Amino acid sequence: MKTVILSSGDELLLGQKVDTNSAWISDQLVACGNMPLYHKTVGDCSADIASAITEAAERAQLVVVTGGLGPTDDDLTRSALAAALGQPLVLDEGALKEIQEFFRKMGREMPVQNRAQAMHPAGTRMLPNPWGTAPGIEAECHSCKIFVFPGVPREMQGMCEKYLIPWLKLQSALHLATASVTTYGAGESTIAAALGELMCRERNPTVGTTVTGGEVIVRIRSEFADREVAKAELARTVALVQGRVGEWVVSLEGASVSETTCRMLLSLGKRIVTAESCTGGLVAKMMTDIPGASDVIGGGWIVYSNKLKESLLGVNPLVLLSNGAVSEAVAAEMALGALLRSDVDYAVSTTGVAGPGGGSPEKPVGTVWIGVAVRSDAGARVSCRKWYFPGDREMIRMRAAKTAINMLRMELLKEPQ
Amino acid sequence: MKTVILSSGDELLLGQKVDTNSAWISDQLVACGNMPLYHKTVGDCSADIASAITEAAERAQLVVVTGGLGPTDDDLTRSALAAALGQPLVLDEGALKEIQEFFRKMGREMPVQNRAQAMHPAGTRMLPNPWGTAPGIEAECHSCKIFVFPGVPREMQGMCEKYLIPWLKLQSALHLATASVTTYGAGESTIAAALGELMCRERNPTVGTTVTGGEVIVRIRSEFADREVAKAELARTVALVQGRVGEWVVSLEGASVSETTCRMLLSLGKRIVTAESCTGGLVAKMMTDIPGASDVIGGGWIVYSNKLKESLLGVNPLVLLSNGAVSEAVAAEMALGALLRSDVDYAVSTTGVAGPGGGSPEKPVGTVWIGVAVRSDAGARVSCRKWYFPGDREMIRMRAAKTAINMLRMELLKEPQ
Repeated sequence: MKTVILSSGDELLLGQKVDTNSAWISDQLVACGNMPLYHKTVGDCSADIASAITEAAERAQLVVVTGGLGPTDDDLTRSALAAALGQPLVLDEGALKEIQEFFRKMGREMPVQNRAQAMHPAGTRMLPNPWGTAPGIEAECHSCKIFVFPGVPREMQGMCEKYLIPWLKLQSALHLATASVTTYGAGESTIAAALGELMCRERNPTVGTTVTGGEVIVRIRSEFADREVAKAELARTVALVQGRVGEWVVSLEGASVSETTCRMLLSLGKRIVTAESCTGGLVAKMMTDIPGASDVIGGGWIVYSNKLKESLLGVNPLVLLSNGAVSEAVAAEMALGALLRSDVDYAVSTTGVAGPGGGSPEKPVGTVWIGVAVRSDAGARVSCRKWYFPGDREMIRMRAAKTAINMLRMELLKEPQ
Repeated sequence: MKTVILSSGDELLLGQKVDTNSAWISDQLVACGNMPLYHKTVGDCSADIASAITEAAERAQLVVVTGGLGPTDDDLTRSALAAALGQPLVLDEGALKEIQEFFRKMGREMPVQNRAQAMHPAGTRMLPNPWGTAPGIEAECHSCKIFVFPGVPREMQGMCEKYLIPWLKLQSALHLATASVTTYGAGESTIAAALGELMCRERNPTVGTTVTGGEVIVRIRSEFADREVAKAELARTVALVQGRVGEWVVSLEGASVSETTCRMLLSLGKRIVTAESCTGGLVAKMMTDIPGASDVIGGGWIVYSNKLKESLLGVNPLVLLSNGAVSEAVAAEMALGALLRSDVDYAVSTTGVAGPGGGSPEKPVGTVWIGVAVRSDAGARVSCRKWYFPGDREMIRMRAAKTAINMLRMELLKEPQ
């Protein structure tokens, strides 16, 4: 199906914000077999948005528009769509009630401007938005389907999953079966090299890779007239992929490193604590992102300063002095200290140089020691490993946290499953 | 001047890569007083690139194209430009020598494919690329100027600075000055209502709002023939904005809540610790996102389980039993317990129901108690506040963490500055 992705917002044309929405939507469209014809970004100008919609609807069978659904005067996508369709804006009483309810739950009265968000062109449908106050809009323009979603990425993503993807799946005559294999620990080019000719674009099922926050996801897409053939061919390709990149595979269900680790802990009935220096809470944050994490993570310590490493986790000041905070000995003492001060089974520690300052020739920015301590019959044992992560502060911290959780996952694999 | 930014590449339309180039170029154009009409992204298809160039050249006086200048068969921007201009591709001997020289410096022979990079449409000029093998192209189409740059961000940026900006500065009659005012604690519609007629689109300077992660940013853009007038009018509008939304203003430099709080702590010489339950490390993570955070944050505790709330922070088990973990009393004990166990000036605590499970009629999902404890001559004082945050687990945790940091910022405002 021919598709076009439009985004609107002065902040995008002014270069104050990078348009990440269009790439995200493209990824979803491609996963359903539709590579867009083009992306176009226009400013907060009703005439520009309207002509971009008209132009796109003439060339494509599906147009996805993001942005400009807020409550303020510079949110013009509703009126632009109305102009493109040649319809007046009308009030949707149901949508108005939902927006009022959203504010009521927050203990506030709906400001009068938000009434504008319940307006839509006559003959179109409003799409409830459980994540915010801006409902989406579903419309038709001749033979073209138009979806309009808010520009806030979290809301846009939720609404694509709720409305766009199910609609797309209904359009295809072919049966589609997809799988995502999560890998961690190898770069995209290493994974691509290992997959080799499986990634040939003419192949069915197709095999592609995408990177999300350090994880390389291998996406497999099998499209056949027969549903059972689509499923069987998918399974065959997943097995081939596993054979090629097995050593890095985290999940065959597309789950992230932290999700997978959380599930393993749950099924093993094991619990953890964290002891973080350079990651500053990110390891615990990633683990507690997962609903139900309270059953597997007791809590943790953030010991950014050496003083707190000593007073909270009992790291020996002489060890700190002679090895420095970024060292195997300190990573080990942190993990063991955390285990000792809790009643859980595992403790994970991080200590490193996240930058931009603080690097030295021996310990350049990006150097991180990670420790995993395990309670055992004989007390506890700890294993540490030194890593070097490239990139800026944010990337180094993200990689360090994810690698710490992955090291824990590797330890859990040693448990009798 | 009317400008358009085009980018090409299947990886962009496939959603495998986010187009950061267009935002970067926009930022440069805006700094020279030219907000683009639109951004457009097309795939690696010569006809699509050619028609995008033709369409843009009809509407604008300047078109900047990125991508498709590599040596391989899917690099088609040279032939597309030739088609748009109706000119044949010809070899530039000088450019060829430079590409050969680039490889020689790396100790390698130029592969034969790279000869294609020395081809350009007759009547256009090649722009030497000191950062890579792909020279840029400068062309005219009727009254429109066209610059073509490679898609690699580092090379594109270098070439924009070397060729595009100097050319732009020669063209401009108007001067542009911009400012960003960060607010927190009020929704976009409340801010817009307070700004009122300042947001009228015909106004100069213009005033607009955007939302990033809970913060509403007010953006001001002043454009005048005289540089000093542009600056003075900008300052006058910033003052007006401050007068209208002052109670929510976090930063006049566009800085985030955590950045601003970090800077305030630094300049006051104060330090903090965190005691987190429902945010699971996110408050500490947000604070330590800021480079140099080690001077203001000692560390913290993540006390997800009640057991750890008791054993690590000394929360009274009877208080937990009678009030529940999500209560004012527990938020207060957590903050005070954290302050007691450290030597810093402030402690921030969070305890709430992030969902999706765990809600009750009295404490629905989204209920969060936040405490801020301050060391004082008489020991310590603590203030707590109950919040209700809408949205899913991720949004509730993000809002809770950001609001906790903002409550700390409000406390810091009481310090003698």
